[in-house]
Amino acid sequence: MRRLINDPYEVVEDMLAGYAKAHCDQVKLCENSERVIVSNEAPVKDKVGIIIGGGSGHEPLFLGYVGKGFADAAVIGNINTSPSPDACYEAVKAVDAGKGCLYMYGNYAGDVMNFDMGVEMAADDGIKVETILITDDVLSSTNIDDRRGVAGDFFVFKIASSKATMGANLDEVKSAAIKANDNTRSMGVALSSSTLPVKGTTIFEMEEGDMEIGMGIHGEPGVRREKIKTADEVVDEIMGYVLPDLPFETGDEVAVLVNSLGATPLMDLHICYKKAAEILEDKGIKVYKSYVGPFATSMDMFGMSITLMKLDDELKELLDYPCETPYFIQK
Amino acid sequence: MRRLINDPYEVVEDMLAGYAKAHCDQVKLCENSERVIVSNEAPVKDKVGIIIGGGSGHEPLFLGYVGKGFADAAVIGNINTSPSPDACYEAVKAVDAGKGCLYMYGNYAGDVMNFDMGVEMAADDGIKVETILITDDVLSSTNIDDRRGVAGDFFVFKIASSKATMGANLDEVKSAAIKANDNTRSMGVALSSSTLPVKGTTIFEMEEGDMEIGMGIHGEPGVRREKIKTADEVVDEIMGYVLPDLPFETGDEVAVLVNSLGATPLMDLHICYKKAAEILEDKGIKVYKSYVGPFATSMDMFGMSITLMKLDDELKELLDYPCETPYFIQK
Repeated sequence: MRRLINDPYEVVEDMLAGYAKAHCDQVKLCENSERVIVSNEAPVKDKVGIIIGGGSGHEPLFLGYVGKGFADAAVIGNINTSPSPDACYEAVKAVDAGKGCLYMYGNYAGDVMNFDMGVEMAADDGIKVETILITDDVLSSTNIDDRRGVAGDFFVFKIASSKATMGANLDEVKSAAIKANDNTRSMGVALSSSTLPVKGTTIFEMEEGDMEIGMGIHGEPGVRREKIKTADEVVDEIMGYVLPDLPFETGDEVAVLVNSLGATPLMDLHICYKKAAEILEDKGIKVYKSYVGPFATSMDMFGMSITLMKLDDELKELLDYPCETPYFIQK
Repeated sequence: MRRLINDPYEVVEDMLAGYAKAHCDQVKLCENSERVIVSNEAPVKDKVGIIIGGGSGHEPLFLGYVGKGFADAAVIGNINTSPSPDACYEAVKAVDAGKGCLYMYGNYAGDVMNFDMGVEMAADDGIKVETILITDDVLSSTNIDDRRGVAGDFFVFKIASSKATMGANLDEVKSAAIKANDNTRSMGVALSSSTLPVKGTTIFEMEEGDMEIGMGIHGEPGVRREKIKTADEVVDEIMGYVLPDLPFETGDEVAVLVNSLGATPLMDLHICYKKAAEILEDKGIKVYKSYVGPFATSMDMFGMSITLMKLDDELKELLDYPCETPYFIQK
C-alpha cells in the first residue's frame, strides 16, 4: 500500500483534524460532530444554509468547497460511505440562519437514506431542509433519476451556493440547483482502482494497461474494460457519450471540467483538455470557462472524467460569483 | 503505463497547447517559442520581469504559477530536462519592460548552463537578467550551494514575484528572493517512481511498500530505502532533518507547505499536516500560513514533502500580496 497514514481505522478523523488545523482561517470542525466541517462564516445572516456531503476519499470534494460564498458545511462519512443521519442533522443546526437549508450530494442510496433522516430530524426542530441529488454520470443509468453524482457535483454546488450567497430564498436556491443539475453531464474512465486503508490493497485488481469505461468514483463497475487508448481516442469516446445525452448543440455555451480521479497528473489532464476543446470547437460549442485538475477524486485512483454544464446568462453569473474556500477561489 | 497521452514524444507540446487553451484568459504561448508560457499581462510597465522554469513533469510547477502578480513567464523543458537557452532568451524578450528580469529555478546543472546562456543572449540585447537558484532540499547535499530546489521553489517564486509586483527594482527583487531561499528548507519521501511516457514504464522500480527518504523530484536517489512507516513517523523524521537545518527555533513564525509528489491524495497530506503542526506547536514555532496540496510534483509519483519558510514582517507581507494564476490565487 502506497499510502501515508496512521491507524487505518482513523484516517477520516485524522484527515479532518489536519484539515481543520491547516485551514483554520476558513473552516472549523463542528462543535457537536467531528464529521462536519463548518465555514467560519456560518451561520450567515439571511442566507439559506448550503450543506454538501458524502463519503470521504473524494477530496477536495466535499470539504474543500466549504468557505465564504460556497458551501456552509460539509458532512463526511467513512471512505466511500454515507455520513450518519446525526452528522447531517448537526450540520443543519450549525449553519441554519432561519431561512432553511439545502442538502446537496451525489445520488447514492445510503446518502439518500441518511440525509433524508437529517431532514426529518431538522423538521422536528422546525427547520426546513430541502434536498438536491446530483445525477451527472451519463453511463451509470439510462434513467436520469437513477444516475450517480460525480464531478458534476462541483458545478451544482457552485451554482446553488452563489444563489444562496446572493440572498435568494430556499425555493430559488433549489431551482438554481435543479437547473444546474439538469444542464450537467459527466463521464469518466479509470485506469486503476483506489487503495482502501483498512484493506491495505486496492478495492479490486486492475491490470496495468487496462482501462474501465464509465467506472464510478467508488469503483462501481463501468460498461466495458479494454486496453488503454490514446488520450485523443479516450476523450473522443467520452464526448461521444456526453454531448448527445443532454444534448449539447451548436451555439451552446458550456463550462468544461477535466477532472483527475486522483493519480492522473496535470500533464495528462491538459492533453485531454486540448482534445475536448477541439471537439467542442468543431461542433460550434463555445467554452465559457474551463477547469482542469483534481475536483472529485477517488484517492489514488488513476483516471479522468469530463463534465460539461450548459450555460445561460443566469448560470454564467452564478458560476462567476466570488467565493473563497481552501480548494476553490473565484475572484 | 497508466497514462492518458498521445504521441509520447509530444507530451510537452500537447500539454502546453492544452494549457494555453484551458487558461487563455490568463496566459498564452510565447509567439517565438512554444516552450514558453507568458502571462497575458506581460510585459508589465515599470515591473521587473519574473521568469521561472525548468523541466516539465512537475506541474503545477512551473507553468501554473504564471499570471497576474506572480511570474510573468515560465520556460519549460522536456520531462525532467532543462529548457533550451533559446527558450530562456525568448522569455526575456517577451516580458522585459525595461527594468530587467530575474530567472528563478531549482539548482540543477543543466538548468544553470542553459539559463546562463539566456542571460548572455539577453545581455547582447542590452537587457539585464539576474539569476536566483533555489536550494531548499536539505538531504541533497551538506553544502547548501550544492542543494537541489524542490517545492521550496513555490515560496521563493512567490516572494520575489510579489516584490516585483510592488514595483521594486531588480536588486531589491533579487534580495527578497535570496532572503526567501535562505529561509526555506524542504525534505521529502517517495513511495514510487514516476512514469516516463517515452520509456513506457517508471524511471526505476520501487517495490510496493518501500519508501525512499530524500528522493528528488526527478527520481534522484535519496539517502536510504526502507519499508513505509506511519505518517506520524515519516513526518517526525522529516521534521527532524528540516528543523535543525536552518535552524527553525522557538518563537519563529513559519509558512508550511505539505506537498504531494503527484499521486498521494489530499487525505494523506492532511494526516501528515496534522503531525507537522503538532511538532511545530510543541517546539513553540507558530504557523502563520499553511498550504496543502500538489505544488511541485513528479507526475504520478507517490510521495510527500514538507517545506518550511521562516518569516519576518517583510516576508509575511510578500506572501500575502494578491496574485491570480491558474493554480494559485491569493486574495
